[in-house]
Amino acid sequence: MSVLSDTPNWQDFSHRHIGPETREQQQMLEVLGYATMAEFIAQVVPENIRQQTPSQLPAPLAETDALAALQAKAAKNQVMRSFIGQGYYGTYTPGVILRNILENPAWYTAYTPYQPEISQGRLEALLNFQTMITELSGMDIASASLLDEATAAAEAMTLCQRMGKNKGKVFFIDEHCLPQTIEVVQTRAEPLDIDVRIGNPFKDITDDCFGVLLQYPGVNGEVADFTAVIEQAHEHKTLVAVAADLLSLVLLKSPGEMGADITVGSSQRFGVPMGFGGPHAGFMATREAYKRSLPGRLVGVSKDADGNTALRLALQTREQHIRREKATSNICTAQVLLAVLASMYAVYHGPQGLRAIAQRVHASASALATSLKFLGVEVCNEQFFDTLTLNTGNKTASIHEAAHKAGINLRHINGEQLGISVDETTSAADINALLSLFGGSELDAEAAINNADWAIGEAMRRQGPALQHPIFNRYHSETEMLRYIRSLSDKDIALDRAMIPLGSCTMKLNATSEMIPVTWPEFANIHPHAPAEQTQGYVEMITELEQQLCEITGYAAISLQPNAGSQGEYAGLLAIRGYHRARNEGHRNICLIPSSAHGTNPASAQMCGMKVVVVACDNNGNINVDDLRTKAEAHSSSLAAIMITYPSTHGVFEESVTEVCDIVHQHGGQVYIDGANLNAMVGLCQPGQFGGDVSHLNLHKTFCIPHGGGGPGVGPVAVAAHLAEFLPNHAAHASNEQGVGPVSAAQYGSASILPITWMYIQMMGADGLVRATEAAILNANYIAHKLKTAYPVLYTGASGLVAHECILDLRPLKDITGVTVDDIAKRLIDYGFHAPTMSFPVAGTLMIEPTESEPLQELDRFIDAMLTIRREIDDVQQGTTDYEDSPLHNAPHTALRLLASDWQHGYSREQAAYPVASLKLNKYWPPVARVDNVYGDKNLVCACLPISEYE
Amino acid sequence: MSVLSDTPNWQDFSHRHIGPETREQQQMLEVLGYATMAEFIAQVVPENIRQQTPSQLPAPLAETDALAALQAKAAKNQVMRSFIGQGYYGTYTPGVILRNILENPAWYTAYTPYQPEISQGRLEALLNFQTMITELSGMDIASASLLDEATAAAEAMTLCQRMGKNKGKVFFIDEHCLPQTIEVVQTRAEPLDIDVRIGNPFKDITDDCFGVLLQYPGVNGEVADFTAVIEQAHEHKTLVAVAADLLSLVLLKSPGEMGADITVGSSQRFGVPMGFGGPHAGFMATREAYKRSLPGRLVGVSKDADGNTALRLALQTREQHIRREKATSNICTAQVLLAVLASMYAVYHGPQGLRAIAQRVHASASALATSLKFLGVEVCNEQFFDTLTLNTGNKTASIHEAAHKAGINLRHINGEQLGISVDETTSAADINALLSLFGGSELDAEAAINNADWAIGEAMRRQGPALQHPIFNRYHSETEMLRYIRSLSDKDIALDRAMIPLGSCTMKLNATSEMIPVTWPEFANIHPHAPAEQTQGYVEMITELEQQLCEITGYAAISLQPNAGSQGEYAGLLAIRGYHRARNEGHRNICLIPSSAHGTNPASAQMCGMKVVVVACDNNGNINVDDLRTKAEAHSSSLAAIMITYPSTHGVFEESVTEVCDIVHQHGGQVYIDGANLNAMVGLCQPGQFGGDVSHLNLHKTFCIPHGGGGPGVGPVAVAAHLAEFLPNHAAHASNEQGVGPVSAAQYGSASILPITWMYIQMMGADGLVRATEAAILNANYIAHKLKTAYPVLYTGASGLVAHECILDLRPLKDITGVTVDDIAKRLIDYGFHAPTMSFPVAGTLMIEPTESEPLQELDRFIDAMLTIRREIDDVQQGTTDYEDSPLHNAPHTALRLLASDWQHGYSREQAAYPVASLKLNKYWPPVARVDNVYGDKNLVCACLPISEYE
Repeated sequence: MSVLSDTPNWQDFSHRHIGPETREQQQMLEVLGYATMAEFIAQVVPENIRQQTPSQLPAPLAETDALAALQAKAAKNQVMRSFIGQGYYGTYTPGVILRNILENPAWYTAYTPYQPEISQGRLEALLNFQTMITELSGMDIASASLLDEATAAAEAMTLCQRMGKNKGKVFFIDEHCLPQTIEVVQTRAEPLDIDVRIGNPFKDITDDCFGVLLQYPGVNGEVADFTAVIEQAHEHKTLVAVAADLLSLVLLKSPGEMGADITVGSSQRFGVPMGFGGPHAGFMATREAYKRSLPGRLVGVSKDADGNTALRLALQTREQHIRREKATSNICTAQVLLAVLASMYAVYHGPQGLRAIAQRVHASASALATSLKFLGVEVCNEQFFDTLTLNTGNKTASIHEAAHKAGINLRHINGEQLGISVDETTSAADINALLSLFGGSELDAEAAINNADWAIGEAMRRQGPALQHPIFNRYHSETEMLRYIRSLSDKDIALDRAMIPLGSCTMKLNATSEMIPVTWPEFANIHPHAPAEQTQGYVEMITELEQQLCEITGYAAISLQPNAGSQGEYAGLLAIRGYHRARNEGHRNICLIPSSAHGTNPASAQMCGMKVVVVACDNNGNINVDDLRTKAEAHSSSLAAIMITYPSTHGVFEESVTEVCDIVHQHGGQVYIDGANLNAMVGLCQPGQFGGDVSHLNLHKTFCIPHGGGGPGVGPVAVAAHLAEFLPNHAAHASNEQGVGPVSAAQYGSASILPITWMYIQMMGADGLVRATEAAILNANYIAHKLKTAYPVLYTGASGLVAHECILDLRPLKDITGVTVDDIAKRLIDYGFHAPTMSFPVAGTLMIEPTESEPLQELDRFIDAMLTIRREIDDVQQGTTDYEDSPLHNAPHTALRLLASDWQHGYSREQAAYPVASLKLNKYWPPVARVDNVYGDKNLVCACLPISEYE
Repeated sequence: MSVLSDTPNWQDFSHRHIGPETREQQQMLEVLGYATMAEFIAQVVPENIRQQTPSQLPAPLAETDALAALQAKAAKNQVMRSFIGQGYYGTYTPGVILRNILENPAWYTAYTPYQPEISQGRLEALLNFQTMITELSGMDIASASLLDEATAAAEAMTLCQRMGKNKGKVFFIDEHCLPQTIEVVQTRAEPLDIDVRIGNPFKDITDDCFGVLLQYPGVNGEVADFTAVIEQAHEHKTLVAVAADLLSLVLLKSPGEMGADITVGSSQRFGVPMGFGGPHAGFMATREAYKRSLPGRLVGVSKDADGNTALRLALQTREQHIRREKATSNICTAQVLLAVLASMYAVYHGPQGLRAIAQRVHASASALATSLKFLGVEVCNEQFFDTLTLNTGNKTASIHEAAHKAGINLRHINGEQLGISVDETTSAADINALLSLFGGSELDAEAAINNADWAIGEAMRRQGPALQHPIFNRYHSETEMLRYIRSLSDKDIALDRAMIPLGSCTMKLNATSEMIPVTWPEFANIHPHAPAEQTQGYVEMITELEQQLCEITGYAAISLQPNAGSQGEYAGLLAIRGYHRARNEGHRNICLIPSSAHGTNPASAQMCGMKVVVVACDNNGNINVDDLRTKAEAHSSSLAAIMITYPSTHGVFEESVTEVCDIVHQHGGQVYIDGANLNAMVGLCQPGQFGGDVSHLNLHKTFCIPHGGGGPGVGPVAVAAHLAEFLPNHAAHASNEQGVGPVSAAQYGSASILPITWMYIQMMGADGLVRATEAAILNANYIAHKLKTAYPVLYTGASGLVAHECILDLRPLKDITGVTVDDIAKRLIDYGFHAPTMSFPVAGTLMIEPTESEPLQELDRFIDAMLTIRREIDDVQQGTTDYEDSPLHNAPHTALRLLASDWQHGYSREQAAYPVASLKLNKYWPPVARVDNVYGDKNLVCACLPISEYE
């Protein structure tokens, strides 16, 4: 007998990814009454949509082999010195922030802070971000980040249109705006019938402009004073947005001081690697008057049930809450992890440090300009911060070429001009290297920098220091910073502590091996406009990923550009729109959407100029096929699309899905299948094969990109062959001339996190992915089965089974006892759990999705918690406990409250804190009691002193 | 005015390292009554020893520049495929362990778990280590790790001598022991008059051997059954130690089954990178009968004040507690961080995974052997696990050369033989590459491995599975493992949470930029016996570090080989011994040691064959110069050395130090200055200049290598020129023929963590180091000043100032109130602090060392805690509180106890948990109440089920 005859393949990653071991899965199947997984799955997934042949993916790689394979690709990227600028700059991520946030699962596996009581740490970091943006921009209020600068500018455009009093059709864009910003705004403007005009803001703004977008400093580097421009615009009731460089604002007069209504930009250069274009946190700040119209998330100060200060998301516009047909934006996410990084960069450096960094950058640029002029180079700029435009005439090509050979990337503006942007990482040696391209001989660049004069006039400089809040003036030694970061993360629950059983938001394992490549310099330090030969490793990985995602979903083509699910959805509808227009059926504008749909669906449809017609659902939550047929017929000639989610938002594989697709196709419509629930399908069925024309995927759900506390997301859009030419394109890499324009600032959106998904797929292989899907469905059904007698499961398929998530109906219990969904969600915190999704898709319910990564022990711990809570509800029902004085209604219980001498509740302290014995060994203590949302929204405060200052 | 005219150098690392900012230091000086730092320092450090010229060190580098400079050196190392074996093997550190332990400050900045209540997490990990070693070795009990396999073997030798009944003088060593093990044992045997004999254990063991050391499998790879050998030895009352390979034990009959008395070895290949030789956790396990003689640390199970299971160090032999002159070992540390890594590797893989890994390794070796034989190569082994010895005859050199060209490192045994060891990282491609060196053509190596037969007979295989404890059978998915790691670290206090104010154990910042290079593959994946051209980067860095440490200390030469302070001390005394012997004064054997000395000092002296004569101290804790003079004169002809600590263990710069040195020198003795307190001297005075002949340094204290929960340590020994030739040498790199032999298994000891110190020195520069020392002294004096009215400060210098630490005398308070040092230490836990050093150097005192890295806010928080505790003591004194029912005596208070309904104490729950208000915002909850040490030592249990199983 050979040595290995009885040895399992121990290097198989899938058994690290999937929680329940094989023998445990067998136990679970027995509980459900099935002998085999195959028998079980056959009862869940309708036969008519089952994938017939396995996905053709490479054989799975062991973790170390996959890392080695990716390292070989990374080595094909060339990390050169970048002076391209144009919105992306070299920056240093302080080590303490890199290791303890970006590489720390306590931060990157956290969910969006919808449950504020277990999110005070990241909420504080986001409040710091808002405070930083508010102060640097000189505005009144800032949101907790947007997807990137370009989409933030597009959001500013619609905000101008919505809020402004000028009812013109024109949106004016400064010709010195970043090219990618202009393009994205154009993409977004077109379906909304907005007329984009590009020109010189000092002379071309007319009174039919409802809004204006200025760039500060301009892409050419020039620092212009827009005060007069803005004043004039205001005379025509035109609103003005300024896209500003965050680091320059440390030294410059702020947009607020110039009178701007909105400021947008990117916080990338505050410690976030360029990463070939993303992810980075875009930002938006505005005036008090428009605060309730800010798109995206906003953190605000409120108080908890005990009257203590507590943070939470203000004016919530989460995806499920998006105002459907009335929506003006489908933004329902942020770039939380990146915003946290940027905010911590400011906390660590403080005002003095930021000023030192900005001054060093400016002095480098100034020294460079002076030396270039001395060498006879024509520098176009009068006033500049960090960027020079050079008239290089007929030497342009040769200088660019020489730079390239020297490992230096310059901005190639046109045949006559080159651009140079310096940044925090620019050294004296870099300045010498740059000068040598122009015939300069070695000089003492360090001395030149130290002696450099201001190239910004006094009038344009910031008056007085920014960031005087204590939070930016306290943690400047590494020890202090480390402890601050730890103390914040200790307040929160993330996946490193407990299951986050969120229906519709797959909180699965984000494996370390998947995360490791993200911070490799070969991926982190690449400018998105670097020459193609420097990015071959990226493109090779991305191309493979595209092919594999197509293979998995059954589609023909895919774009990885959308940097959030909502953006993928938007891009998908744009593709459908483009298709109809190309066939001269541009009049098709009706989008059918079932009543059970996610709120972003109608929002995205509206943004594409479509009209939403709602299709009814039956009592089981399935699409009412008769109603669909009726409406499809009624709108047959103008039917553009249907948007469905599969498995449905009710967590069920609807048997009728192929019929639904057929009906829509018969009437000339396209079928959009929302990929939010793809985790239930991978390897079992393919939306591109059973009727879909377009789907967006959520790599941050199904494909292991961590939620990061509420972003980054990646929402690729996959399409059938006939729609391929209508995918997003990008000027930087014009591969698709027919495209609908870009939907993100960068060609590949959030490129630097794509290695996560690549690693996941390579390590799982086709078979591992199938087993993951099966385990996800098994875990959900196991929970549903164990809880169904305590809490009715709202929807099931024909066999009484659910898909990968289940909805517990709490309405009957509430009717009898008064106990609400909120009570149960908050009580779960006392048990150490993040709550499931609340009241979506049906008010008064909890939707639970355990994912395949949750081990059986954790499922049992959750079930135990829910059943114990049910007994607590029984006590209310039977009158043993008064609802108003129940541990449910008072949840969560802080240690502070539990230790109060005057405990006057009808239940004991132990019952409050340790309702199940295992909590005595491992207890999470919420830092605040139940947060009062109404108070916070009524008294909106979105920038503040740290919590400790409120005491 | 230039841009940078008012800009601080923001890239200066020293302001990240040093806690108090300049303006805060000024405030603190004012509190102490000094106008300037210079004026203050002049009052602390005696003028006659002050360093006159600044250290000549390179200008400080910014963090990123230092990282770039080190990366350039790292690039000069070549990471080749290693098949050298000989105690060091390739291994994969699972990503989840790498990121969440090795790169996580919550683990690496923790202190040795002397305070068990705040160390339950790492104590559990160490208990897992002990359990793993016990089970795999087949022994009854294992300690919590030793420094490396070679020193563990030396400790086994002395254990045999101490415990055995055979009173012969011979220690027998198997000729197939690892060469470095033999050398280290020889070094250690010589001063103890032990006769080391090397031979064939099957025929050469005689009845005058008190002990035997066997290697299993042998360095030649052979798996021999030692059962009969051990049985025969036992007939002569000879004790037998087996040095065993841990991974092989997964498949092999254990040393315990063969009858061994002791098993030693290395746990390196359980997920710990080779790192050019270290650090790795050595291990030792033995029989029940010898359990109280195990050297080093031992974790045991006990219970807490509430009767709950709690872990703690059993039979404590900490450095201060080492039994001085009676000592048989100076081992007072462990390799905790590495032992934790190895234990987690076993927890994650479990018995099934370890078996799969071991079988894969064995199958690879077996397939290789079969194929080599097929190619006509003479394989010497009959039975083997992973290592082959090949008779390569006159082809030896050419094969070795061909291997080298192919990037393959083989073991060069001699001119006729080569060795090949495979490991976890050996791939099928590697097997093919190896075979091609012997003329093999490409074969399907994967198939060959899968079909390979056992090369270990049934009789030699392990019967039944090891590691059946639940802890090794529970955390096999990454999610489970991640949560387990987090839950353990959450139980502990490390530097990422609070100050650890330990006098004599500098717990300063371990900066991220210092830690980052440690896990670079160019440092992590180098075999210690790799050819010199592959290790140029390492040697360059080490050489620079040696020079810079000499420059800082004022010595002429240094050895970085000792991998703990105690080993440096031992090496230093060996050098003194060698010096006297070389001058034909080998009779000099008296070592003067002040009564205030660290316990390791006499222990090390004894190990070097010296006799200890104690020198008295005066009431101020200073050396009694008269007594010294008397004793030096009395022993003038046989005076070998004096060992002093400077500044003294009493935390004072003794004015008399130069006089002390002079006296000893006058009598022909050498001066050993213990470097434990070097943190008070760097840049201010130099032991090598004011009288020292030898010092050891603690890089893990003064030079930022983190404590790792109790190891790794690095204890270089620095000497004046006349002692340079007596520094440790090493056969692997025979640079110093006259040396005293090696004191560690690897030439450079713990080479892979030396980048930490290199980075620290490069980033601080000479000036930064001075400022750090000044800040450390200032911080200590600030605390002493603020606390001295509440608690008398025991010793001060002539100006009433202390050095870098201060001793609070609690004896008067105890006499009045009954409140003990323990009570205060445990009460500090309720305030969120790790206790200062307890009862060292004087019983009934607390010694506080804040270090320069602690910010003023944290110092004030500590002072606030101590003053509040003083008020709690006052309450006892005034009778307001009964001592037995005081928050002091009952400390620490667990949440569980505080929430009990039947609270019957004379103080409130709030007073127990929140004695100061800031705790309400950030509270550490101890997982256990006060631990009962006596119970645990009486009922010694050192391997166990996880805590949760005890409930």
